[in-house]
Amino acid sequence: MIKIKKPTVLIDEARVRKNIMKMIHKAENSQVQFRPHFKTHQSIEIGNWFKEYGITSITVSSVDMANYFAKNGWNDITIAVPCNLNQIEEIDTLAREVLLHVLVDSIETSQYIAENITSKVNIWIEIDVNSHRSGIQYENRSDIKNIVKILEKADLLNFTGILTHAGNSYNAESYKELNQIHKDTIKKMTEVKDYLEDRFRTDVKISIGDTPTCSIIDDFSGVDEIRPGNFVFYDLTQLKLGVCEESDIAIAVACPVISKSKIRNEIVIYGGAIHLSKDSLIWSNNTRIYGKVSFLNQGGWDEFLPDTNVINISQEHGVIKVSKDMINRIDVGDVVAIIPIHSCLTANLCSNMYSINGAIFTSFRY
Amino acid sequence: MIKIKKPTVLIDEARVRKNIMKMIHKAENSQVQFRPHFKTHQSIEIGNWFKEYGITSITVSSVDMANYFAKNGWNDITIAVPCNLNQIEEIDTLAREVLLHVLVDSIETSQYIAENITSKVNIWIEIDVNSHRSGIQYENRSDIKNIVKILEKADLLNFTGILTHAGNSYNAESYKELNQIHKDTIKKMTEVKDYLEDRFRTDVKISIGDTPTCSIIDDFSGVDEIRPGNFVFYDLTQLKLGVCEESDIAIAVACPVISKSKIRNEIVIYGGAIHLSKDSLIWSNNTRIYGKVSFLNQGGWDEFLPDTNVINISQEHGVIKVSKDMINRIDVGDVVAIIPIHSCLTANLCSNMYSINGAIFTSFRY
Repeated sequence: MIKIKKPTVLIDEARVRKNIMKMIHKAENSQVQFRPHFKTHQSIEIGNWFKEYGITSITVSSVDMANYFAKNGWNDITIAVPCNLNQIEEIDTLAREVLLHVLVDSIETSQYIAENITSKVNIWIEIDVNSHRSGIQYENRSDIKNIVKILEKADLLNFTGILTHAGNSYNAESYKELNQIHKDTIKKMTEVKDYLEDRFRTDVKISIGDTPTCSIIDDFSGVDEIRPGNFVFYDLTQLKLGVCEESDIAIAVACPVISKSKIRNEIVIYGGAIHLSKDSLIWSNNTRIYGKVSFLNQGGWDEFLPDTNVINISQEHGVIKVSKDMINRIDVGDVVAIIPIHSCLTANLCSNMYSINGAIFTSFRY
Repeated sequence: MIKIKKPTVLIDEARVRKNIMKMIHKAENSQVQFRPHFKTHQSIEIGNWFKEYGITSITVSSVDMANYFAKNGWNDITIAVPCNLNQIEEIDTLAREVLLHVLVDSIETSQYIAENITSKVNIWIEIDVNSHRSGIQYENRSDIKNIVKILEKADLLNFTGILTHAGNSYNAESYKELNQIHKDTIKKMTEVKDYLEDRFRTDVKISIGDTPTCSIIDDFSGVDEIRPGNFVFYDLTQLKLGVCEESDIAIAVACPVISKSKIRNEIVIYGGAIHLSKDSLIWSNNTRIYGKVSFLNQGGWDEFLPDTNVINISQEHGVIKVSKDMINRIDVGDVVAIIPIHSCLTANLCSNMYSINGAIFTSFRY
């Protein structure tokens, strides 16, 4: 184990590789394209592990992140947010260098891209099946049809398919509900696909992607592409959803203990919102927590300490409630591992991530 | 106004300078040392504005941040978190270069520093008067006395005084309550000071510092030093507490609009948790919000749009609920200003901040 002096994101390489391979096998079994979302790890080195297993197409969440990975050898990239018209020049430049896919969810955006692009770009129409963030409502056939008309008229725009993110899966309370969300997603996306294939052409692809459904669904019939991202590390949110095991979580933040109160059975770590993010969730006993806690070992970290939670967090401090027994086992100067609520935000916050043995993963940071 | 292409932190210099000067005048009127906390802006250039007004001593929240400002000409620095023993070597090195103040809140930490430091360091004992994060409980005279004994014995350690952060001020619901918290803080800190001065020596200083109380209290009698930080920018949290006006808030994040739904009266911005942080608060009508919204103008940003709030936030997206009237006034490609819940976390998330006219503020980032 490397020497920890300050809050340090640790990555368990064996777990990451296991998570990647599992998702690759799933995609292969269902014969769907696997286009992992790189916004979770944002790292060149971890990206290279995907490459080792033959992955060549990726998803990112911003133009800048697309540029970052393009500069590092990736040449088939989907920017999976509605196209930011204010970066049309950067998009145009990037589209000259790589096979670039962008999303549209309105007539205005489609028209703007058609008029302002000078390179070939693959266009996906983002469909809102039920998550109600971005995307055009799946019922709105008229707008969807008019968008395709614009795309089909523009020589440089290659209408590739329809894409959705079933973000509502994060609210599911059971496997059954997750399954239902997936079924509903496929049903609605297929309706749109059929509608468009009846009117335009017969190769409209369907792209879906969120870690909860991609983790529990084995049969991706009806889908052409999956884009999960979080599965590479998983986290407490996914564990609570029941889509991963504790032993699948491949990220922890090692934090020095800087204070303790025997009266309150609390320890304070150097490690706060700027390291872990402010994300929280309701754990057992209706307790809002900001992370679980474990001890570091030579190869990584142990199982969660029982009845031990990060219960409060400020800019640089985290407060951990421990059992009476545990307060005597943890001293100021010790280092504990915090398992994060949301691995994407945690990884984004740290300039560097480290493997257990000290290898550094360089990462994009906005 | 600079051209905005992606989420961009904007700083209103005139407001920042007004906020700084107001706090300086307060400190001068009460004849207390003003040691502003630089964790909010973390910026060299904004630090230099303080310097212009004669400020020479600062507060930071980590050893790395202390190093950053030391390298940029600051030579009287308090690291206002309990001393991280895992960075004792860095602390020792820094103490050779600048007048360094560190915090202790236990016998163990004090002993460790006494045994491991080779340079002169000023030591403050952190007292927990009521915020229950770090600090030694103010009632615990026995431990406080024993810490001072250790400090007095160590030639290189200069016991300077007692320090507290009344973090509970953030839960106050009225001016009256804030005043009460301040009075309670001063009363308890003075008790500890008197206790120590009876037993040791007569120059035990009292340092306090949180933006809510420092903003509303005019008379700092009984205090030697104040360390507020957030006041430099303020934010919605401080506005809700009633300790600043909307027109005092000196920070906004300019975000491009990337999607809109006329059905839901929602617009989606490129600007999410990795730009604004995940901090939220309950605004009027029991609505949880992640930011207020306004239009940019040539000199900055307008007043908040009525009934318009960031109601949801994910990694890169923010969802804004707007009025029926407003949905027709905002288009994809427009740029809106988001006023953050917590300016410290927002400023920390962005590598660079900009003035309205495009000047860049370089900043420390963990």
